[in-house]
Amino acid sequence: MKGKETKIILTEKEMPTSWYNVLADLPKPLPPILHPATKEPTILPPPLFPSGIRDQEFSTERYIEIPEEVLDIYKLWRPTPLIRAYRLEKALDTPAKIFYKYEGVSPAGSHKLNTAVAQAYYAKKDGIKRFTTETGAGQWGSALSLGCAFFGLECKVYMVKVSYYQKPYRRILMETWGAQCVPSPSPDTEIGRKILAEDPNSPGSLGIAISEAIEDAFKRDDTYYSIGSVINSVLLHQTIIGQEAKKQMEKAGYYPDIIVGCIGGGSNFAGMFLPFVKDKLNGKKPNLRIINVEPTACPSVTKGLYTWDYGDVAGLAPIIKMYTLGHTFMPPGIHAGGLRYHGMAPIICHLHRLGYVEAKAVPQVATFQAGVQFARAEGIVPAPEPNHAIRVAIDEALACRESGESKTILIALSGHGHFDLAAYDEYLTGKLQDYVYPEEKVKEALAHLPKVDYVEA
Amino acid sequence: MKGKETKIILTEKEMPTSWYNVLADLPKPLPPILHPATKEPTILPPPLFPSGIRDQEFSTERYIEIPEEVLDIYKLWRPTPLIRAYRLEKALDTPAKIFYKYEGVSPAGSHKLNTAVAQAYYAKKDGIKRFTTETGAGQWGSALSLGCAFFGLECKVYMVKVSYYQKPYRRILMETWGAQCVPSPSPDTEIGRKILAEDPNSPGSLGIAISEAIEDAFKRDDTYYSIGSVINSVLLHQTIIGQEAKKQMEKAGYYPDIIVGCIGGGSNFAGMFLPFVKDKLNGKKPNLRIINVEPTACPSVTKGLYTWDYGDVAGLAPIIKMYTLGHTFMPPGIHAGGLRYHGMAPIICHLHRLGYVEAKAVPQVATFQAGVQFARAEGIVPAPEPNHAIRVAIDEALACRESGESKTILIALSGHGHFDLAAYDEYLTGKLQDYVYPEEKVKEALAHLPKVDYVEA
Repeated sequence: MKGKETKIILTEKEMPTSWYNVLADLPKPLPPILHPATKEPTILPPPLFPSGIRDQEFSTERYIEIPEEVLDIYKLWRPTPLIRAYRLEKALDTPAKIFYKYEGVSPAGSHKLNTAVAQAYYAKKDGIKRFTTETGAGQWGSALSLGCAFFGLECKVYMVKVSYYQKPYRRILMETWGAQCVPSPSPDTEIGRKILAEDPNSPGSLGIAISEAIEDAFKRDDTYYSIGSVINSVLLHQTIIGQEAKKQMEKAGYYPDIIVGCIGGGSNFAGMFLPFVKDKLNGKKPNLRIINVEPTACPSVTKGLYTWDYGDVAGLAPIIKMYTLGHTFMPPGIHAGGLRYHGMAPIICHLHRLGYVEAKAVPQVATFQAGVQFARAEGIVPAPEPNHAIRVAIDEALACRESGESKTILIALSGHGHFDLAAYDEYLTGKLQDYVYPEEKVKEALAHLPKVDYVEA
Repeated sequence: MKGKETKIILTEKEMPTSWYNVLADLPKPLPPILHPATKEPTILPPPLFPSGIRDQEFSTERYIEIPEEVLDIYKLWRPTPLIRAYRLEKALDTPAKIFYKYEGVSPAGSHKLNTAVAQAYYAKKDGIKRFTTETGAGQWGSALSLGCAFFGLECKVYMVKVSYYQKPYRRILMETWGAQCVPSPSPDTEIGRKILAEDPNSPGSLGIAISEAIEDAFKRDDTYYSIGSVINSVLLHQTIIGQEAKKQMEKAGYYPDIIVGCIGGGSNFAGMFLPFVKDKLNGKKPNLRIINVEPTACPSVTKGLYTWDYGDVAGLAPIIKMYTLGHTFMPPGIHAGGLRYHGMAPIICHLHRLGYVEAKAVPQVATFQAGVQFARAEGIVPAPEPNHAIRVAIDEALACRESGESKTILIALSGHGHFDLAAYDEYLTGKLQDYVYPEEKVKEALAHLPKVDYVEA
């Protein structure tokens, strides 16, 4: 590594000025989303979403211009660095070449800010004053809080009650950026009051928080509802990651053999791989491997069904064709909170179904072992979510050591773990546990799928 | 700000390859350090410090080459960005041009890693296997832990007991990087055992932790002791910050009118301003203002005496000519733990004495008000220490609004506040308090200065 370039950087002038829309290049169109009540094809509901977002959701324009106001804010931390993991390669004694694209330099600490800024911009443009959203561990809530701060919007975050009290730092971060954050269930909504009346000690859930955020936004003309992953437009906003990475890999003189990332809702990794999958869709790079990594505790793609299911736990959100463990499935309490989703972004599911991407599930303890090895070699302490990607990358690099192959591996390092150190403590003190795949619970949840008569053309 | 460059970046090839040593350019030599027992001029004691560090401490070479192994590690996060605070300028409605140099992109979250990596390199070169150090809030301990991880050295950190239990995240960070961190006083040293025998519930102090770390290093042939600020060589290592900033300001097309930074031990801000003070020492930029900002609760330069005093609380460290509040002075518990030092780096004191730099003290609540305003405009949540610099920068920018002047202000933003959010919570909920200058306590401490007969030539 002596004297060689470690970071491959881009200037602001080299930053992509459009998002890449894979819908323009799919060999078979994406299934529609269905209205949760009528179960007929529908759009994102106008009273909840900015017009700019609704326009993007099903657009088939290949490139969608990034508004200059959004680009100007991206420039506070973008382009993000692509880093050659020379020190990790050496620690693994592998001939593989490992690169990681690091989104943790964003002030919110992850890729989430890419879409938060865009959504806040489009809301502001519509003359809206306020956003609501839900958050589990707080990653998304804090990103949206900052996005709203940049555009002078109010922001109210319904945070799952148990996390609200367990993770006060994420809540304080939101408040520092000017947002209001309340534990959910809250007395601020009808559904919150109803649940509190039944059980004043309810720990809350993401499903409840979503319902509260949607109810709040429905009731006020000045308010939109924001979602941080899964839907097409959110994945679109994240494609700035992969477009930058592609330019950077070109500068480094390599094209990846393997791209690896973690998937929860799917937006970070799709943002990374979509600009590369284009090269598979058009036949230029048929051998490129794109590996979606999920936790064995919540293995939507590797163990779920590809079918119609509600996007949310309560059945208020549209019905999506996706790999799902059943919308009522409650995943075990792994530390990678961002990966605890019963379904998966429809775009990822569609590409998986068509054979363009693959999936792997890894157990929790092994992901932290990988994260600690990464931290001691490269310095950065990754969030529990990208530790899943690092685990698979290390395994692939070790396979190269055996085979003598010098593959090029690109990791989507979605964020830092500064707010997840309690999880590292559990790992380091031997208290961290693995969860077996909850087969019975999934079976039960899959018995509650919605009945859908819609047939694709 | 539309379309204009926000970040001024340097490539790895543009990164400085030498540290700048101001000792070569001082109009009057720096006073020596005195042995704590003999009170005669001395050097850094060989059994405690790497030979490379001892050589640098009093060198008068103007530029000291950065070893390639150190540069290779710096490249993991350096050069750090210089950012034009367009959004803060707009929020303040000021004609001033504000720039900040951001060291928070380092994996340890602050500038401290610049010297930690260098010290670990020189220790490894001497064939030493292990480092000890003390840490208060944990900023320095975590930086040294990572520095040691990079070079495969063991690291033992004595962390002030009250902080050890109050700030577990910093402790976990050290352990993630492979260091051992124990609450001080500990049963692992004679002085620790002695204090625990007298008071098993002793909350510890930085003075005790220093004594334990030094005792440990003295006793073992394979171990050095490391210090994270104050001494000349540590300031030297930090000059990479200012050298980069100078190149970046040049690229931006501006030379600062005012450079502002916080001072605790002084290494971060000296690292920033020393390459600029060179232009004052040689008469090229006589009007450049360099403002050292300290807390009103611990105002070493603005209220202290310029005299001989021990570097540490216990009187084990060398005696230094510096601005001091007395080595027995215990500063109030402000959140900017890194600024709670009774003295100041001798280089800064000397330059202040000679009139090349100035100093200001600011109260705690106003620094957090500035930090929150900064976070909402620029995204980054700063550590409590650099909030002191941001306070003064904002005041200067507001003065420009009054006067109509368009001054160029450069802020040393030494690190992020991800581990300091409890302090932000206190501020946001109105619980944060200011401390009046503890005049009586300083008076008492100043009565315990060492008696020194040494007279400078």
